[in-house]
Amino acid sequence: MTTHEILLAARQARLPLAMADTDAKNAALEAMAVALVAAAPAILAANRQDLDAARGRVSDVMLDRLALTPTRLTDMAKGMREVAALPDPVGEVLRNIARPNGLVIQKTAVPMGVIAIIYESRPNVTSDAAALALKAGSACVLRCGRDAWASCHAIVEALRTGLRNAGLPETAVSLIEDTTHASANELMTANGLVDLLIPRGGAGLIRACVENATVPCIQTGTGICHVYVDAAADLPMAVSIVENAKTSRPSVCNAEEVLLVHRKAAKKFLPMLREALVTRRADSGLTPVELHLDERAAAIIDGVPAGPQDFDTEFLDYKLAVAVVDSLDDAIEHIAAHSTHHSEAIITTDPVAADRFVTCVDSAAVYVNASTRFTDGGEFGLGCEMGISTQKLHARGPMGLAELCSYKYIIRGSGQIRGGKAAQLQTPCQ
Amino acid sequence: MTTHEILLAARQARLPLAMADTDAKNAALEAMAVALVAAAPAILAANRQDLDAARGRVSDVMLDRLALTPTRLTDMAKGMREVAALPDPVGEVLRNIARPNGLVIQKTAVPMGVIAIIYESRPNVTSDAAALALKAGSACVLRCGRDAWASCHAIVEALRTGLRNAGLPETAVSLIEDTTHASANELMTANGLVDLLIPRGGAGLIRACVENATVPCIQTGTGICHVYVDAAADLPMAVSIVENAKTSRPSVCNAEEVLLVHRKAAKKFLPMLREALVTRRADSGLTPVELHLDERAAAIIDGVPAGPQDFDTEFLDYKLAVAVVDSLDDAIEHIAAHSTHHSEAIITTDPVAADRFVTCVDSAAVYVNASTRFTDGGEFGLGCEMGISTQKLHARGPMGLAELCSYKYIIRGSGQIRGGKAAQLQTPCQ
Repeated sequence: MTTHEILLAARQARLPLAMADTDAKNAALEAMAVALVAAAPAILAANRQDLDAARGRVSDVMLDRLALTPTRLTDMAKGMREVAALPDPVGEVLRNIARPNGLVIQKTAVPMGVIAIIYESRPNVTSDAAALALKAGSACVLRCGRDAWASCHAIVEALRTGLRNAGLPETAVSLIEDTTHASANELMTANGLVDLLIPRGGAGLIRACVENATVPCIQTGTGICHVYVDAAADLPMAVSIVENAKTSRPSVCNAEEVLLVHRKAAKKFLPMLREALVTRRADSGLTPVELHLDERAAAIIDGVPAGPQDFDTEFLDYKLAVAVVDSLDDAIEHIAAHSTHHSEAIITTDPVAADRFVTCVDSAAVYVNASTRFTDGGEFGLGCEMGISTQKLHARGPMGLAELCSYKYIIRGSGQIRGGKAAQLQTPCQ
Repeated sequence: MTTHEILLAARQARLPLAMADTDAKNAALEAMAVALVAAAPAILAANRQDLDAARGRVSDVMLDRLALTPTRLTDMAKGMREVAALPDPVGEVLRNIARPNGLVIQKTAVPMGVIAIIYESRPNVTSDAAALALKAGSACVLRCGRDAWASCHAIVEALRTGLRNAGLPETAVSLIEDTTHASANELMTANGLVDLLIPRGGAGLIRACVENATVPCIQTGTGICHVYVDAAADLPMAVSIVENAKTSRPSVCNAEEVLLVHRKAAKKFLPMLREALVTRRADSGLTPVELHLDERAAAIIDGVPAGPQDFDTEFLDYKLAVAVVDSLDDAIEHIAAHSTHHSEAIITTDPVAADRFVTCVDSAAVYVNASTRFTDGGEFGLGCEMGISTQKLHARGPMGLAELCSYKYIIRGSGQIRGGKAAQLQTPCQ
């Protein structure tokens, strides 16, 4: 089917999905999880096809992202069941307004309609995205990368089996067949057919969406995350937090990339940092962190000189850019100039400094005395997430079910007219 | 100053505005209101200039939209004081989350930053928009139409006097000097400088933004609003509501443009409608409504035959397109095919029909037994509005102060790291 035909078919699923109650959606998620695991042979066979085609062409890290195993499939099914256990966002009354003229106004959460997700490499995004969209009452149209197409296709076939078994339209979940740039562009400009576009991938994909998308789009951004160690920081806590933020999982967006240290703390802190991130790690057989130091930091500890791009680079690796700053305000200014508005942290015992930092820093998540690695739907208690938004409109930070909804105002009256007395109805229709 | 220079200067005002407390902002609004009225001679002189240049070139309706009077100026000042009286949206904690690991997470409303508003004709939008943006903690950059430039410039000069008197940066409110398409396009693509763009104008301007804007934009749409009179409608109530929705103020976006009538109600209702909207109005010296009838309505009452575009036209006049439908679902389908997602109403005494209508109709405001004319920030109890959004992302319906804000997550900890026990700080920094 062409992309256009797929979008039209997805549109037909909107109303049945909007009207499906919570039990119906949860039953469908359960059926989809069952069907996913039942289809393991077919899915794993398709995955082997994808891996064979990719081997030699892509890096080992990429092959690993592409690969499915029985365990990964059962994890995907578990993820769908977790979504079923989350509260249903649809129909939530966000605000109740009783007007003096008798009108009762309810600002009510409603599904977006059709959510398109463009993603790269990881086939498990297929079932995550489908589960979240379904629970949020929307149809989803998925467009994966070429390398993962056979795997994603097999997954979607299984999910559709589940939908059919549960009595919901199978067009609630669709996979675009064309994996060229043309299909991505078509989704980005499908006004009237796509209600929300979520690109999940690298900077190139995000940029393409910002530049070309005319449909509503949520930028799930890169993370050049900062940790600022203040003059009044608890230094052992700072070491612990920096170590966790940088090394617990360097390849994710909420990992720290830049360390800023107040000059009053630098002499004492930087050697402690090096001891933990370089020496101790090397001694324990762990990858030491390569410290990219500005001139002032290089005067205190050993490392490599920071290059001109190092404070604007998402390393996604065991590399940390380090700079010494003269003041809290200089740290705030540096962050303003270089951050991607994802997550930043201040380590300090000074409540005034903490307050100034959280007020002035313009990012989705701003931390006092905790690791940036907590920026995650699960860690925030929002449940699963569709990605982490770094934009300001509609959703910011981890995007859970509520962020996949819109709202409308439902106003119930008894004959009220603007500028006049209310006509009274004998049996109010509520 | 060039548009770019103006945007850079506006950006400098962001932090002072974000940090200004409620009293400081309200004092500034008061000072701006005072300065506005004090500058009446200069503003009215500039307005006379604009009117002289426009006379003969534009319609009388347009001249009226352009014109300022002492009364309109005092109304503008009153509007600013009303914004000062509204609750401050900045800093509101939208959600408080206490995590098992001790992290305290507060989803907190924050200013957008720099809000650009592109508007046409009406100089009073200048002070409305400036007041709302300021109270919401953002700088605003205004770009008006050429016809109103001298008036808007004089108004902004007065507002800046007020800002200076109140000790806030005058770059909190700026007016673009270039009124060509180039400046509008520059605002639409000023990523990193404009945090939110609100176009307030006709369909052409909105469309240009949808197609060209790469900055976050809120579509304030046209209103092809529908009223559906159900088989179970209270007919006198229906007449009263349709009359109000169509004729109380036909030129605004929440005025009704289309009437759908269930065939079971049509024979009785349509003559009552004609009596009220045509005969009685003509007899009272009011403009009768021109009824544009589909074939089935034309078989019941007199009017003009509905043309092929009549159900997709925002008349903004004493004209009403009328169609007879076979069922509630047909009405819902018609609305889905033709509405601009603004406001739609059902008149019925049947709660099942009402529920189905409010669930299935995908518009910003959906009414049961009340006039569509209530779609308005003031009428919804939201205070003043920056326009009525017809899109689904971020804001839908009347956009008040809260919709001019974004949010961020502020997370306060005591040393927590991801995947590990929390390091305990002796004096938590809260």
